[in-house]
Amino acid sequence: MSTQTNSPQLPENLRKFNPVTVIGAGLIGISWTAYFLAKGLEVKVYDVRPDLEDVVHKGIVQIIPTLRELGLPTEDLTDRLIIEKDLERALDGAALVQENGPERIEFKQELYTQIEKFVNKDALLLSSSSGLKASDISKNMVHPERMLIGHPFNPPHLVPLVEVVPGTNTAQKTVEQAVAFYKELGKNPLVLKKEIAGFVANRLQSALFREAIYLVSEGVVSMKDLDEIVTSSIGLRWAAGGPFLTFHLGGGKGGFPAFLKHLGPGMHSLWDNLGKPHLNEAMTQSLSELSISSFGDTSVDDLEIERDQRQISILRSLNRNTN
Amino acid sequence: MSTQTNSPQLPENLRKFNPVTVIGAGLIGISWTAYFLAKGLEVKVYDVRPDLEDVVHKGIVQIIPTLRELGLPTEDLTDRLIIEKDLERALDGAALVQENGPERIEFKQELYTQIEKFVNKDALLLSSSSGLKASDISKNMVHPERMLIGHPFNPPHLVPLVEVVPGTNTAQKTVEQAVAFYKELGKNPLVLKKEIAGFVANRLQSALFREAIYLVSEGVVSMKDLDEIVTSSIGLRWAAGGPFLTFHLGGGKGGFPAFLKHLGPGMHSLWDNLGKPHLNEAMTQSLSELSISSFGDTSVDDLEIERDQRQISILRSLNRNTN
Repeated sequence: MSTQTNSPQLPENLRKFNPVTVIGAGLIGISWTAYFLAKGLEVKVYDVRPDLEDVVHKGIVQIIPTLRELGLPTEDLTDRLIIEKDLERALDGAALVQENGPERIEFKQELYTQIEKFVNKDALLLSSSSGLKASDISKNMVHPERMLIGHPFNPPHLVPLVEVVPGTNTAQKTVEQAVAFYKELGKNPLVLKKEIAGFVANRLQSALFREAIYLVSEGVVSMKDLDEIVTSSIGLRWAAGGPFLTFHLGGGKGGFPAFLKHLGPGMHSLWDNLGKPHLNEAMTQSLSELSISSFGDTSVDDLEIERDQRQISILRSLNRNTN
Repeated sequence: MSTQTNSPQLPENLRKFNPVTVIGAGLIGISWTAYFLAKGLEVKVYDVRPDLEDVVHKGIVQIIPTLRELGLPTEDLTDRLIIEKDLERALDGAALVQENGPERIEFKQELYTQIEKFVNKDALLLSSSSGLKASDISKNMVHPERMLIGHPFNPPHLVPLVEVVPGTNTAQKTVEQAVAFYKELGKNPLVLKKEIAGFVANRLQSALFREAIYLVSEGVVSMKDLDEIVTSSIGLRWAAGGPFLTFHLGGGKGGFPAFLKHLGPGMHSLWDNLGKPHLNEAMTQSLSELSISSFGDTSVDDLEIERDQRQISILRSLNRNTN
């Protein structure tokens, strides 16, 4: 590990967010770390896990091929990386914190009071939390106005979305800075207007997945065929245009109002008919077995590489998130 | 309109399905007609609408640029097209029927008893119905074994999926032939194991859309931002891999069983929390107004061209459905 130097490739607009501290070296934290480094930022990564050095380096090595496919520079990445097991030193000088700690509210509340003790008073505090609200996480903070949720979709180095969700005490300026930061990184930050459990993407995902589980558990379709049905229809559609645009176009010349008028009643009767599966022990067991017979022939790593390749191809075709 | 001749580009494996009769010249019927023609089939298109000739020709002209983008030949397409307002003549000699009539069960039941009177006894009878079951449609048929649902996702000339849904009386051979036909056409036919209202793709779509309407109506997010959230995350994901593969990979080395164990409970609590909006008059009115302020600046035609362009780019990037 060399000393940190201002990287020549760090774009002007990212300088005010440099250096970054990443808190928590799980899958999300390591993905952010690799991505921030590839974008030219200096990064300190903090975690208390004993294997920290090892897990961060191995994680980055695994992500490098994908970063390369995205057209990002990957040489000497770790020259700008510092691994730190002491929170105070990790936060020293940070302009921005991306926190990826465990999803327990008491843990996060305590963590943020600690962060506040050590961090510069104008540092931007962003939490990757997928479930907790900024208003709750920042409850015990003296300056909650500089904290908000910056929830990426996994893995952050590959998926464009970041849901930006301010708490009731978050300052408008903080929202603007977070949006500017993620945009400058090449991400697609979307600001929610209200805090809600699960935010938007995971709620939508879980709604579809509930029905997917129902259809498979009822024996209507196999897991693999359901996946094929999605990739061949709605997945493809929703990569090219979201659900509202899709139905706006589905209404013909009359657009979405015509869609609602003509197809709304049919949609409503489908809603009344959707499944309500419960993930009890028997269901979990049966779904686990089905998944092994569906996907067990190929390793998770190989399946992931194939999937990521397809995803990068799609991003390229849409000129998104690639350099 | 010239007389029909066996087209030189008709692939060997499609000959046994030639000629085709398309019943019903709405959006779906015209899309199928254009696609069948571009694949080298001879097509008779039947409808009772007085503007039939005009609407079919205009429809095909509008689809031609997309067919070209898909790499399909579009010259002299209509040389192999016959437009016919008499059902008996339309069905004369047909090896295969793709029916796209109105979605009313009594109408379809009567239509299929008529079809049976006029069609060759070994012709394959495929219904594009998105809502009705083959078992119900074929109720009054003498030979229901040759009839099933071949439900495309709109528009059939562009989206790969065809849901193949046999009724209780459909013969296995009919299922196999329908699958062979759609595969030979370059489509992705998936066979459902049970008849269910809405089949699979529309049920999944409606489940997600219900939550989308809830989130917009609750003021959590705008229509445009919700669309952006989807295209930047789950849409992209589900174009590259279906929901089960996605969560199989979301479980890390332990795959889907590990996902269910660790993230299942969180997913379940989101399910309990999903919205249940009702498409009553006030909601329909308010959503219609929101859609106009979201999409009203651009014509439906222009939005559709842009969306289809993105979709063709994605299909190309995945080497799907393009020639």
